[in-house]
Amino acid sequence: MDYVKNAWYVAGWASEFDGELRRVTILEENIVMYRNSKGVVVGLEDRCPHRMLPLSKGKLIGDDIQCGYHGMTFNCEGKCVRIPGQTNVPKSARVIAYVVYEINDIVWIWMGDPDQANTDDVFNMPEFSDPDWHAHQGEALHLEAHYLNVAENLVDPAHVSFVHPTTLGNASSENVPVDVNTNGEIIVAWRWIRDAPPVGFFEEFGGFSGNVDRWHYYYLHMPCTAVIDFGSANTSLALAEDDRNQGVRIFALHFITPIGPDYSIDRWMHLRNTAVGDDKVSEKMDAMFKVAFNEDKEILEAIQLEEKRPQRRRPIRIAIDKGPTVYRKRIRELVEAERVHDLGDPVDPMFVHHD
Amino acid sequence: MDYVKNAWYVAGWASEFDGELRRVTILEENIVMYRNSKGVVVGLEDRCPHRMLPLSKGKLIGDDIQCGYHGMTFNCEGKCVRIPGQTNVPKSARVIAYVVYEINDIVWIWMGDPDQANTDDVFNMPEFSDPDWHAHQGEALHLEAHYLNVAENLVDPAHVSFVHPTTLGNASSENVPVDVNTNGEIIVAWRWIRDAPPVGFFEEFGGFSGNVDRWHYYYLHMPCTAVIDFGSANTSLALAEDDRNQGVRIFALHFITPIGPDYSIDRWMHLRNTAVGDDKVSEKMDAMFKVAFNEDKEILEAIQLEEKRPQRRRPIRIAIDKGPTVYRKRIRELVEAERVHDLGDPVDPMFVHHD
Amino acid sequence: MDYVKNAWYVAGWASEFDGELRRVTILEENIVMYRNSKGVVVGLEDRCPHRMLPLSKGKLIGDDIQCGYHGMTFNCEGKCVRIPGQTNVPKSARVIAYVVYEINDIVWIWMGDPDQANTDDVFNMPEFSDPDWHAHQGEALHLEAHYLNVAENLVDPAHVSFVHPTTLGNASSENVPVDVNTNGEIIVAWRWIRDAPPVGFFEEFGGFSGNVDRWHYYYLHMPCTAVIDFGSANTSLALAEDDRNQGVRIFALHFITPIGPDYSIDRWMHLRNTAVGDDKVSEKMDAMFKVAFNEDKEILEAIQLEEKRPQRRRPIRIAIDKGPTVYRKRIRELVEAERVHDLGDPVDPMFVHHD
Repeated sequence: MDYVKNAWYVAGWASEFDGELRRVTILEENIVMYRNSKGVVVGLEDRCPHRMLPLSKGKLIGDDIQCGYHGMTFNCEGKCVRIPGQTNVPKSARVIAYVVYEINDIVWIWMGDPDQANTDDVFNMPEFSDPDWHAHQGEALHLEAHYLNVAENLVDPAHVSFVHPTTLGNASSENVPVDVNTNGEIIVAWRWIRDAPPVGFFEEFGGFSGNVDRWHYYYLHMPCTAVIDFGSANTSLALAEDDRNQGVRIFALHFITPIGPDYSIDRWMHLRNTAVGDDKVSEKMDAMFKVAFNEDKEILEAIQLEEKRPQRRRPIRIAIDKGPTVYRKRIRELVEAERVHDLGDPVDPMFVHHD
Repeated sequence: MDYVKNAWYVAGWASEFDGELRRVTILEENIVMYRNSKGVVVGLEDRCPHRMLPLSKGKLIGDDIQCGYHGMTFNCEGKCVRIPGQTNVPKSARVIAYVVYEINDIVWIWMGDPDQANTDDVFNMPEFSDPDWHAHQGEALHLEAHYLNVAENLVDPAHVSFVHPTTLGNASSENVPVDVNTNGEIIVAWRWIRDAPPVGFFEEFGGFSGNVDRWHYYYLHMPCTAVIDFGSANTSLALAEDDRNQGVRIFALHFITPIGPDYSIDRWMHLRNTAVGDDKVSEKMDAMFKVAFNEDKEILEAIQLEEKRPQRRRPIRIAIDKGPTVYRKRIRELVEAERVHDLGDPVDPMFVHHD
Repeated sequence: MDYVKNAWYVAGWASEFDGELRRVTILEENIVMYRNSKGVVVGLEDRCPHRMLPLSKGKLIGDDIQCGYHGMTFNCEGKCVRIPGQTNVPKSARVIAYVVYEINDIVWIWMGDPDQANTDDVFNMPEFSDPDWHAHQGEALHLEAHYLNVAENLVDPAHVSFVHPTTLGNASSENVPVDVNTNGEIIVAWRWIRDAPPVGFFEEFGGFSGNVDRWHYYYLHMPCTAVIDFGSANTSLALAEDDRNQGVRIFALHFITPIGPDYSIDRWMHLRNTAVGDDKVSEKMDAMFKVAFNEDKEILEAIQLEEKRPQRRRPIRIAIDKGPTVYRKRIRELVEAERVHDLGDPVDPMFVHHD
């Protein structure tokens, strides 16, 4: 499948993990996760190597998991430490242990070669620890859609006018062209709509009555993190692009976790420079975001069904597709690079691959 | 698949279409249909050529459909007339426009080469416009069954004794042989059961008490329209075959729309020479037809499940199978002829076929 | 598929069959079964050779089945005795008639070559007719699991400590090794846990307060019958292995019927040398068995789902796997032997095989 393995993905908000065994699926791999007695989140392959029962059907004995079928027990490193009824434990009695890292109340997991995992690469931004900014975790949107389609939607400002006409967009932006910069590591697509009525979201949270200048900057970090910087300021301020902090500014973050070919989770949250500390505003914003993100979900799930049907012809591409097109190209290149790298590896003699 | 493409199929009763966008599926093709401001029913390929969102998820702007994702807009001929954010519209920005024809309150659609569509070929019969006859539209029976099995059942008078013993058949007909004529374009199978008790339907609607002569004529028009001419008359009249209008006579019409390999819709209606203008009788007849057609549905869906299972041996054929056998042979020939014709066509360079 | 065809399988308890037509599925074959007017249970291929309607959708005319579509009628030997509308009945108009045998209130069916069916091979044990023993039929446990996994679980005493900690096992047995004897036709795995607290089941039904000697003997008869001989006696008796009748002894019988690749039925019952004639005890035991067998079901269904997913490596085998490993090897050999035998047969010219 077209997944980038050597990358950090979000396994969940920090609050999703405790002393219970919990199965999560990421890149089609089943992982049993739990928070151990030291407060560290553990992620192990969720399948006993003996009879393949998911370890999440077993139970914790201290910080180790005991399989629910015959009691084989695995520690946090995935090593089997007990086989009831026999004294020797073969070296092959082990499961994969994933590299897990927690920061900003978010639990990240590295899905590829553990030796290449570098926690410095985990997504971060200074506003998380800036007291002038308020961070608020939203929910996990489950979509029956391929992650490439979900991510593509998040580097595509043009859809907002048509998909979210009552919340994040309105008719004023329909014909405003989109700027795209694909020179850096992060793909950026943006547009300013100047001197136009505010959209529903900023009528509600910016308190604007007259015309505003508003902006949408979509930053897509490879492979699966999107930052949408959007905001508004009174047109009278004639705001320069770099002075966006002087307006009402929101960063909507989307952490996409590919689950399988037809399934993705988009965990969304926001950072804002207004109503800091006001939980009521957080709740109201969540409610409005949910309206908008469910509009995306409806579109993306309908597209997914179409993509499974026979294709009569090649889809056409139009001007606004530059960001998505570059994104897909980069993903293909990363996947291809990993594939070539794998071919060069000697085969691990302990593992036998079936198709 | 074994569909005849160059043919008229029923897309719906006229009452099913209005100013709302409605997805219908015919021969596995998804079509968005609506009635435009001129009252004409339009049928377009239900998939935007850009990102494949079904157009039925968009909305009507006048008589044109605006896609719900990025606002690409298509007119009734399937031509793209607007791409927001750019001025040029490439020629490939279009969708298939189907030929649609409405007559007798029925909407027909041509699924093949538009140049071969001829509205003179649409099914019709003079009784539709004869004041001595009453036409009444029934319902749409959805069957999880292949259309060939559904159609076959409608050129098969022999099943009536066993599948519909309380409504359309009874034991008197069990051993009466079936006549079949396959010389003309329309396959006809029929039998008369003379001097026997009336079946439930005509006890109710013919008011017969003593013995009757009754008839069943099954006319199958290629590929998917069945006319069942059935009726009864007092045995004392010694009715000649050609004098059936002197008895109580019903034409039950079945318009089969193949949806997919395991799914068909049978829209059924009737014309009658009795109780003209009496809606109560229409309702009562519908109720009795529904009992009978649900009996067919149960049989046909059970057979469909069997056909998907492994076949141990070739099914046997018996005397009553002549009509169905000729029908299947003709369908195969029509499909094969279309396939050969397609091979001779030059490939349209604008379309790229993926398996 | 990996089924042994030349074998007796349980089609149901005797009480499951009467004058109604009932479809059962065994080894992926659909069979219509009913008890005829002589009290004999009949099993016929559940598919009319004409249009493939299941005969179980038809009705009994005396002891014969009349197909619900066109009235073709089959006797208890599977021979067609009537085709309405014609006088001759072709020789190929027949369905398979299975060999059925009823004993100990259990209905067995032979799924292979009828000439090889020998009722002497049907499972039996003297306790069925011994007045000192009480036989009680339990229920039919439906499992979405392959029969080999279900059977394997029944020659595996080691799982009891971990899967059934409150009913059939407890922690005392966790590290007690399992003895296995695979020399005879029946695979036997067993262990004694001496001088340990009784398990929940025998606290309830043995009335033990102090420590007991308890045993588990798992007998697996090829291909699908398991006998679990388990019991307890006061440790003070120092019971010899052969004197188990002096303790409280239960035979739990499991008759596994493979339905399809992912589906099995386990009909379970027991024989006991205690509380003979006491129906209240039977009920209580059933309740406790159901708790335990649903624990097995949960494990086996989770494993089934894992087996359908991609395999990363070959499962490991441990000491307790000897019984299951020999069992699987024997099944493979039996299946292979049948396959070789089939190749040697001349092809029956009346049957045409489609893939």
